[in-house]
Amino acid sequence: MPVYKLTYFDVKALAEPIRMLLTYMGHEFEDVRLSFEEWSKIKSSSPFGKLPTLEIDGKVITQSAAICRYLGREAKLAGDNPMEDMNIDIIVDTFTDFRKDISAFHHEADPEKKEQKRQTLLKETVPYYFERFDRIVKENNGYLANGKLSWVDIYMLGLSDTVIAQLNDDVFEKYENLSQWKNRIASIPSMKTWIAKRPVTRL
Amino acid sequence: MPVYKLTYFDVKALAEPIRMLLTYMGHEFEDVRLSFEEWSKIKSSSPFGKLPTLEIDGKVITQSAAICRYLGREAKLAGDNPMEDMNIDIIVDTFTDFRKDISAFHHEADPEKKEQKRQTLLKETVPYYFERFDRIVKENNGYLANGKLSWVDIYMLGLSDTVIAQLNDDVFEKYENLSQWKNRIASIPSMKTWIAKRPVTRL
Repeated sequence: MPVYKLTYFDVKALAEPIRMLLTYMGHEFEDVRLSFEEWSKIKSSSPFGKLPTLEIDGKVITQSAAICRYLGREAKLAGDNPMEDMNIDIIVDTFTDFRKDISAFHHEADPEKKEQKRQTLLKETVPYYFERFDRIVKENNGYLANGKLSWVDIYMLGLSDTVIAQLNDDVFEKYENLSQWKNRIASIPSMKTWIAKRPVTRL
Repeated sequence: MPVYKLTYFDVKALAEPIRMLLTYMGHEFEDVRLSFEEWSKIKSSSPFGKLPTLEIDGKVITQSAAICRYLGREAKLAGDNPMEDMNIDIIVDTFTDFRKDISAFHHEADPEKKEQKRQTLLKETVPYYFERFDRIVKENNGYLANGKLSWVDIYMLGLSDTVIAQLNDDVFEKYENLSQWKNRIASIPSMKTWIAKRPVTRL
């Protein structure tokens, strides 16, 4: 079995979908959590100066979605054909678009502007995306794509707690199908075990 | 043969890799180019309010990278195994990170701040990414991944002219291997034909 070493900060965010997929597959992995100071010392040796990185048998790879697509295929959580794979990828990239808006709010330094951005997110951006995700889940047998469990379900579950913490609002629980979806994916035995044992972090 | 309808604005940008891949595959497609006014009228009927969209036999799909990954597979320009696919995906998403920085500059309203951002891009961001892309091309037999032509080569070629126009600087030609790479991909007969016949747009 390959040796996996995941390197990120001590938060869930972009590393959590990878941690969850490795756990789902029953793979042990080294879960390295760097301080910003530690990261600044080794940043220049990283392929593109970004985290997370996953080392598989010493080969360092980057880009969380690319890593998850790879692991998802290995976990038999990819699509059954190219069209199904595309349906998965569309949700992944649309969720990334949504998170880009969250990120712009999260990194806003001015407290007044930040609160304004938060209100826009909660009143416009979240409803826009989440009504659509909610409908997709409803039309897909309780999953995000292709009417069955795929890696995008674990991908979005992994990122969901960070989104909730950043917005300081459980935006998932306001949407009936999405709320049920989140409980459904978090109740997969391996996910339940991981969520119970993972380090407690705010983000 | 499926009927393809691509909808975007009258620029290259995110639609150009799709136009190029369809051309590479020898597929005829309807190349719809909307004004912003036309788009504002039909935006609400689009799956996530974003362009480009590609209709394949009436099914409307979104997200340019997801579309290109799908078409790339159909064009036999995907990897030969999951690891090769991941190598392609890493370059795609890293180039997206780079374009995010360009986009922040491009949409800056304040002319003074915009010029500052441009200088940071040209002096720091472009060299950081492009030295690495240049090395990757050198190590991959003149291509961006796996030592052979893949859809990421056409993907980046499609976006390159918009990057150059946004920066108002041919940043590709300053890097020996990247410059040769761009000429190599643009010289593929179908690409050459498309570039000669496509509508002339600044972006």
